[in-house]
Amino acid sequence: MTVDVVQALSRLLSAESLVTDPDVLQAHRNDQAEWAPAGMPCALARPATTSEVRAVLDVARTLRVPVVARGAGSGLSGGANASDGCIVLSLLRMNRVLEVDRRGMLAVVQPGALNAAVKAAAAEHGLWYAPDPASWEFSTIGGNLATNAGGLCCVKYGVTGDAVLGLEVVLADGSVVRTGGRTVKNVAGYDLTRLFVGSEGTLGIITEATLRLRPRPPKATTLLAAFPTLVGAGKAVCDIMGTTRPSLLELMDRTTVRAVEAWKPMGLDVEAAALLLARSDAGGAQGEEEVGVMAAACERAGATFVMNTADEAEGELLMGARRFAYPALEQQGATLLDDVGVPLSRIPELLAAVEHIAAQRGVRIGTFGHAGDGNMHPTVVFDRNDLDAMTRAKQAFDDILHAALDLGGTITGEHGVGSLKRGFLPAQLGSESLHLHRTLKQALDPLGILNPGKLL
Amino acid sequence: MTVDVVQALSRLLSAESLVTDPDVLQAHRNDQAEWAPAGMPCALARPATTSEVRAVLDVARTLRVPVVARGAGSGLSGGANASDGCIVLSLLRMNRVLEVDRRGMLAVVQPGALNAAVKAAAAEHGLWYAPDPASWEFSTIGGNLATNAGGLCCVKYGVTGDAVLGLEVVLADGSVVRTGGRTVKNVAGYDLTRLFVGSEGTLGIITEATLRLRPRPPKATTLLAAFPTLVGAGKAVCDIMGTTRPSLLELMDRTTVRAVEAWKPMGLDVEAAALLLARSDAGGAQGEEEVGVMAAACERAGATFVMNTADEAEGELLMGARRFAYPALEQQGATLLDDVGVPLSRIPELLAAVEHIAAQRGVRIGTFGHAGDGNMHPTVVFDRNDLDAMTRAKQAFDDILHAALDLGGTITGEHGVGSLKRGFLPAQLGSESLHLHRTLKQALDPLGILNPGKLL
Ligand SMILES: Cc1cc2nc3c(=O)[nH]c(=O)nc-3n(C[C@H](O)[C@H](O)[C@H](O)COP(=O)(O)OP(=O)(O)OC[C@H]3O[C@@H](n4cnc5c(N)ncnc54)[C@H](O)[C@@H]3O)c2cc1C
Ligand SMILES: Cc1cc2nc3c(=O)[nH]c(=O)nc-3n(C[C@H](O)[C@H](O)[C@H](O)COP(=O)(O)OP(=O)(O)OC[C@H]3O[C@@H](n4cnc5c(N)ncnc54)[C@H](O)[C@@H]3O)c2cc1C
Repeated sequence: MTVDVVQALSRLLSAESLVTDPDVLQAHRNDQAEWAPAGMPCALARPATTSEVRAVLDVARTLRVPVVARGAGSGLSGGANASDGCIVLSLLRMNRVLEVDRRGMLAVVQPGALNAAVKAAAAEHGLWYAPDPASWEFSTIGGNLATNAGGLCCVKYGVTGDAVLGLEVVLADGSVVRTGGRTVKNVAGYDLTRLFVGSEGTLGIITEATLRLRPRPPKATTLLAAFPTLVGAGKAVCDIMGTTRPSLLELMDRTTVRAVEAWKPMGLDVEAAALLLARSDAGGAQGEEEVGVMAAACERAGATFVMNTADEAEGELLMGARRFAYPALEQQGATLLDDVGVPLSRIPELLAAVEHIAAQRGVRIGTFGHAGDGNMHPTVVFDRNDLDAMTRAKQAFDDILHAALDLGGTITGEHGVGSLKRGFLPAQLGSESLHLHRTLKQALDPLGILNPGKLL
Repeated sequence: MTVDVVQALSRLLSAESLVTDPDVLQAHRNDQAEWAPAGMPCALARPATTSEVRAVLDVARTLRVPVVARGAGSGLSGGANASDGCIVLSLLRMNRVLEVDRRGMLAVVQPGALNAAVKAAAAEHGLWYAPDPASWEFSTIGGNLATNAGGLCCVKYGVTGDAVLGLEVVLADGSVVRTGGRTVKNVAGYDLTRLFVGSEGTLGIITEATLRLRPRPPKATTLLAAFPTLVGAGKAVCDIMGTTRPSLLELMDRTTVRAVEAWKPMGLDVEAAALLLARSDAGGAQGEEEVGVMAAACERAGATFVMNTADEAEGELLMGARRFAYPALEQQGATLLDDVGVPLSRIPELLAAVEHIAAQRGVRIGTFGHAGDGNMHPTVVFDRNDLDAMTRAKQAFDDILHAALDLGGTITGEHGVGSLKRGFLPAQLGSESLHLHRTLKQALDPLGILNPGKLL
């Protein structure tokens, strides 16, 4: 079988586009979700063109082999993990920024282009590509699209899906479909673009994207506030979101703050129940005014400390605390990073539930995340060498998913379902929605060759 | 057949929910697209609950009768027009705002709720429902969602689809699916919400929507500028969009301005090739600064007149010119209102093409619209009693669609395909995309009972 697949691929792909070296295959089995299962691919295809992508799908269809699309492999849900005998389809060689239309405010890019490269190309024309997952320096646009990646600025500017005007997609049947177009508004037909965004490589392979660019926002003013209670911090989040338009609104709980202080001491308040970091990029006087409104909201909600700065360097310093959150927790042991979302009003309840779970399961959980979107990353920290601790950590991870669902939330706000959370999807969707998902998958990929066992 | 359908419906629906009075049926045949074909329904169902909607679909499925969903019937593409023997399914009785969650910043509403009612309910809680089609006072949320309606503020705040978190939808097979949820970010599964948004009643009946609310923006500063050339106006649009974030950016060409002046004289420059109206709602000093940047862009682009005002009443006065645009053109004869979109950079070319078409076909065309989104409404004005003029008007309407496509644009930016533009969809989508549309339609509605002959 493997021999057949490799032979068939070698007939259709250039030598450079096909790799079977076991070490290389080994290096393409996993994304960054350490705990998700991964099989062994039979081949790595590295197409340079859309027609080579199509050729890979032709082989896969004929021989009924799974195809797992892969960008940078920075995913956190096992979405790009290989299944046994699959073809891993890396888009990294299709990495060109094909066009930046300054006046049209759009860029046309290949899927393997790094988010950072798109940002840089836009900046050269005085424009801005907004979506900013923390992995922006090394993740690909294709991966960002296929997971509908979020980030820090989406509280004001939306997620990856909000920045895409059109796609080129190769379907399981080998047809090449263009969705959307080059206009901001377009209601000619179904919104196929959004169907592929977030579909984690299970409905088609994205081979080109037309992305929306924006004017660069003015310089930001940054605010830091400390709260003695989680409820106070949650109240401030609702108040800020209900009255202003922050360009960033992040939260860190005490466990996370302590991890940061233990690793990179910067004088944060380790007694506070939570810190909030907020920004306004309204610009100039209005930015300061907006941050003033945010500061007042924090004070009303019982903040014990509030400061803000329009100085960029100082603002970046404050942001450091948030940027170090996850690596600081990683210093303390193995981690299980969760990615739940709740309605804005229920953040304090989520944080309280997480504290309860930590106590009950006897594990440490640091929580940080995109409070303004209700999207939090409770991170279970444990000793990798302690089998019992690992079991309890996994139980806590699952408990957190249940807690989010109980609060009317979601099991994943931005990292995707992948294989890691597949088992939880039915609980969130319900049987009718799940059935509709299957209907769509069946309609677009009747042979089930596209990333089987992921998402659904 | 008709007898069967009515009998079957009467067994399942309450008396109040079923109407067969011919006058009432007559009044439910058409939307506002005068020129789109309309058949005669056999019954009007006015369900009060999701289960009654389901019952209607059960009958339709069993007896293979088309079902045409209908909100306020204010559509401009014939989307809600009856087909012969169909059941018109009016959602107007399901018109309650079920919940406004102020802290969660969302509203849960039934599809028959008017956009105006949702805005009012949000305002009671100090919040704002952004989408503002010009028909906001009388169109329904269900219709807004099913057409993915745009409006004036979407240049900054997005279209209807950008304001929806989740839906309840009854499918052709009678199942009731919930999509999305109550969180802003959610990547658990495919984006089913966006699949139904803009699907014009062809994939399912929307029976509930969870809508995203925002803080009310600060008071706007308004700018008016006059340009001696279309190219100048187009340049200003690109410049403004590339450097600021207007909360409104509208254009009116000379024909439209003259129509307004002929009907409601307000001293507009009838010699200008185009007027631009722009707004900033950045607030306070920043709003004025932003409008200052816009004014400078207009001057650089050769504007002969630029004024702006932070005074609300005066701002509304200026906005009047834009609001009167379509009714003023309607004063001059029968109209064919188009709704094309082009990439931002190609607006001058579109306007030039429209002028050319007007000359060539010997018709009058006034163009106005959402310049900041590249979404324009060239409106062909003609004498209803002159058959030849009518023919030429229809030809001009079609020419405009071709012109938009030639410029890399779309045949519809916000009004939808309906039956009016169905014939043009293949030219825009291409055969692969059209095939995928059909695959989806077939998967969700294999018997073709949902609004057949619309969109596809
Ligand atoms: C340090 C770190 C920080 C992170 N921060 C964030 C964050 O802030 N926000 C966030 O949302 N995520 C974040 N992530 C997760 C991850 O970076 C994102 O999911 C990213 O979008 C994945 O891009 P990738 O190129 O690595 O895709 P991969 O991991 O290679 O693939 C991700 C998924 O997309 C599919 N896929 C990839 N390319 C294509 C294609 N061309 N066509 C179809 N399917 C395709 C894969 O099959 C897989 O299912 C972070 C990860 C790390 C390691
Ligand atoms: C004066 C005027 C100004 C307008 N201005 C704008 C504008 O600025 N921007 C804009 O985008 N449009 C505008 N429109 C067009 C129209 O108002 C919009 O398309 C509006 O969204 C239609 O809402 P409705 O309730 O009237 O829907 P209808 O006309 O009744 O139906 C529209 C479509 O939606 C489907 N539908 C309705 N309800 C449901 C449901 N619950 N489930 C599934 N399908 C459903 C129908 O089958 C049909 O295909 C304007 C129209 C007029 C007359």
